[in-house]
Amino acid sequence: MCRVYAAVRVRARAGDGFLVRSGSVGSILVHSIGIDIGGTKIAGAVVDETGAILAEERVATAAGDSSAIIEAVVGMIERLASGRDIAAAGVAAPGFIDADQSTVYYAPNVDWRNEPLRERLRGRLGVDITIDNDANAAGWAEYRFGAGRGARDMTMLTIGTGVGGAIVSEGRLFRGGFGAGGELGHVRLVPDGLPCGCGARGCVEQYGSGRALLRMAGEIADVGGIGLGLASARERHGALDGAVVAELIAAGDPGARHALGQLGSWLGQACASLGAVLDPQLFVFGGGVAIAGDLLLDPVREAYRQHVPARGYHPEPEFVVARFANDAGVVGAADLARAHAASL
Amino acid sequence: MCRVYAAVRVRARAGDGFLVRSGSVGSILVHSIGIDIGGTKIAGAVVDETGAILAEERVATAAGDSSAIIEAVVGMIERLASGRDIAAAGVAAPGFIDADQSTVYYAPNVDWRNEPLRERLRGRLGVDITIDNDANAAGWAEYRFGAGRGARDMTMLTIGTGVGGAIVSEGRLFRGGFGAGGELGHVRLVPDGLPCGCGARGCVEQYGSGRALLRMAGEIADVGGIGLGLASARERHGALDGAVVAELIAAGDPGARHALGQLGSWLGQACASLGAVLDPQLFVFGGGVAIAGDLLLDPVREAYRQHVPARGYHPEPEFVVARFANDAGVVGAADLARAHAASL
Repeated sequence: MCRVYAAVRVRARAGDGFLVRSGSVGSILVHSIGIDIGGTKIAGAVVDETGAILAEERVATAAGDSSAIIEAVVGMIERLASGRDIAAAGVAAPGFIDADQSTVYYAPNVDWRNEPLRERLRGRLGVDITIDNDANAAGWAEYRFGAGRGARDMTMLTIGTGVGGAIVSEGRLFRGGFGAGGELGHVRLVPDGLPCGCGARGCVEQYGSGRALLRMAGEIADVGGIGLGLASARERHGALDGAVVAELIAAGDPGARHALGQLGSWLGQACASLGAVLDPQLFVFGGGVAIAGDLLLDPVREAYRQHVPARGYHPEPEFVVARFANDAGVVGAADLARAHAASL
Repeated sequence: MCRVYAAVRVRARAGDGFLVRSGSVGSILVHSIGIDIGGTKIAGAVVDETGAILAEERVATAAGDSSAIIEAVVGMIERLASGRDIAAAGVAAPGFIDADQSTVYYAPNVDWRNEPLRERLRGRLGVDITIDNDANAAGWAEYRFGAGRGARDMTMLTIGTGVGGAIVSEGRLFRGGFGAGGELGHVRLVPDGLPCGCGARGCVEQYGSGRALLRMAGEIADVGGIGLGLASARERHGALDGAVVAELIAAGDPGARHALGQLGSWLGQACASLGAVLDPQLFVFGGGVAIAGDLLLDPVREAYRQHVPARGYHPEPEFVVARFANDAGVVGAADLARAHAASL
């Protein structure tokens, strides 16, 4: 049962951890566990080295209760590892994570402030668990197994409630000097713009997120005209939520599509600035809003072309939709953990 | 005379090039040549592996005449190499350079459009010459031998007539997917802002460059009050140029210092956005305007703190002035060429 292969060396205290066997030689697959701590749920999966999910589970989180979250993560890892050969486990968490991938400096939805998450998990599980920013994990999954496969330089924007970012440069995840690089939702789009949860103003997140889409849809509903469909849906459902707006977009409602076009235009403007810094071969758009596909990407491309510096004197990046939907975080966290274990 | 050492392997056609000997073992220094093609002059130097300049020369350029520039570069390399053991030669040029470091996609001040500069130089010199963006070369010089020494992740802004940028990540120059990453002067600061030479509007370069400083100084001179010193200097000299404004800044003139403070504030706002993307350990400010030191950096730091996302939940970068002034380009180009030769 306890097979030790050559390719992956695992650091574990003998006897008290489960991560005592692993590795890949030839066709034998290496399995690792990825955990994704979200705002309302924790997802976990056993992932093989091709990015395929072999087993998974989800539990609701008590938002903001960090002890309950730790317990849930520990229990999930123990259950997923039980009876399996596992090479490594990684956790994707929201917020700023330090360059050593040990400490959560700050998490927006959990009361973690300089939380030594890696040490706490190691203390409970007896083995080393890597931690990564959730958007970085999602970007890594796309780079390794999804829409970014084959690229060397990729920038990902995850358009969910907020806007997450990830940068892959020359095949490596770009973390920055303190570990908090790639916070692309907090690049400023508008001086003295809308206040953001990060304390700054005018951030991309306030103009390019799912929450921004609902705000724009509500503004269009207020003015009538092309907004009549949105106004009537708001009346019917009591409020405009993501599902209602997505349904109207799919049905061709002009107001909902106009809101999506506004969102895409802001994101394209952001990409023009990000392109000047990062010059990626492609931009990958993930998260719930990206399901709209070219209805989102066409206005992104158009705004990008209008705003990109030195247009025409430089190859243009591609704009594509992510392959993974909800699973990007667990797949990326598992693969980053495996890569980390292999490098020890 | 013809010593070949082990540490550096040089690719050269035997007999027809000068780059046939090189390398470093123990204390023997490796010399390389760096050339910096500027808007008004070409500088060249022989640089040792500690970044020290052993010989240099400068010639004026016929702005925009690409053939004359090629001739000048070739002549300069031949003269600098004559009688010396040289491991490699590199050229720093303005503009977008492709990821293979071969082609200048676009140069702002020379008529290079998809110019195969590396091939042209190889054709003339018979040896491989690396080419790099001039701001990247300057950033690399600071990282290796100057203000960025000891850091792993550094962002540099070169505040000259325009604004250049360079990114070092995990000890490597960040080039981007098409080679044109780090164009930090063309991140948008202001939507629908001032038109920029790149064709876009509101770029950092229009608010944070030496040219922007002169514009701001002129505006302050126009309104009187603290601008009286600037107005009187403009009257005396016929116009406000960099030297006049620098002199007033040094003399404590309130209008000139206010203009510098405005410039620093814009640059600090840019750094807050760049920090969200790149999260460097330090920002290095080079170029002529950076000679003002803390008179520039204090307003940069203040604006950064006001605008940075999630302030206080994350270590803050340092803001420092570059060590090299005019020599950064030649030193960086020489060192990048040496590193390139060593990697072959």
